[in-house]
Amino acid sequence: MDTSTPSTDAQGPLGPLVRIGTIRSTLRSLADAPRQGDEGAPDAWLEVEPGFAPALDGLRAGDTLVLITWLDRANRDVLATHPRNDTALPLIGVFATRSPDRPNPLGLHHVTIRHIEGPRLRIGPIEAIDGTPVVDVKIGWGGS
Amino acid sequence: MDTSTPSTDAQGPLGPLVRIGTIRSTLRSLADAPRQGDEGAPDAWLEVEPGFAPALDGLRAGDTLVLITWLDRANRDVLATHPRNDTALPLIGVFATRSPDRPNPLGLHHVTIRHIEGPRLRIGPIEAIDGTPVVDVKIGWGGS
Repeated sequence: MDTSTPSTDAQGPLGPLVRIGTIRSTLRSLADAPRQGDEGAPDAWLEVEPGFAPALDGLRAGDTLVLITWLDRANRDVLATHPRNDTALPLIGVFATRSPDRPNPLGLHHVTIRHIEGPRLRIGPIEAIDGTPVVDVKIGWGGS
Repeated sequence: MDTSTPSTDAQGPLGPLVRIGTIRSTLRSLADAPRQGDEGAPDAWLEVEPGFAPALDGLRAGDTLVLITWLDRANRDVLATHPRNDTALPLIGVFATRSPDRPNPLGLHHVTIRHIEGPRLRIGPIEAIDGTPVVDVKIGWGGS
């Protein structure tokens, strides 16, 4: 078998992404939400879909995680933006920012596990609003 | 308008993800690749699709980036794994690891821009193999 052939060069859609869980937060709208988790964001629940709960085995309170969310209210057609929505700052490309508006609206969130109740993880701080789909969970850098 | 209604609770597929670029690397197979970028990985090219090149405006050599890749050779059905493929270690859930095998095989890579040639960015170090689809680029923590 020629393992050097890059099957990854095929064109066409990637994915599909599946929802592995959902954020349950007191933040109900984008207007309520801080721009980053370290700017006064609250703790929230991550409710993992029952079928994916076994993938949580080994996580403990106090662990740091990277969550990847799908920010489905973002504008996927935007390629340039004012940093931090400050129109006094010049437009720059979205890949030079952390704006949610980008071709694939993936959100990255560094959080700490406060406690675990079966498939529900109390985590924070996190600026994602209630109902945000979660697509991945990884142990933080320095972990396994 | 009631902005508090979570439209994000709709079920069904998320996405679709689009390929915004491709890794061009001397790493041609998974057997060649280190597990993490800081374990001897080489520099590589990120070739951004022409339609998304304007989203690079503002990036400069020396900037640190977070790349998100779609690891399309990963096994999406795996929910538990031996950390670092060491069978002496007990099985744990994939969300407690950084294994590429997970329900949505998204890879996170912290890299530095070495130099920029139009829509091609020389970046590194990065353990992703040649042909790996890239789905997002964000400025590193501490940036805009």
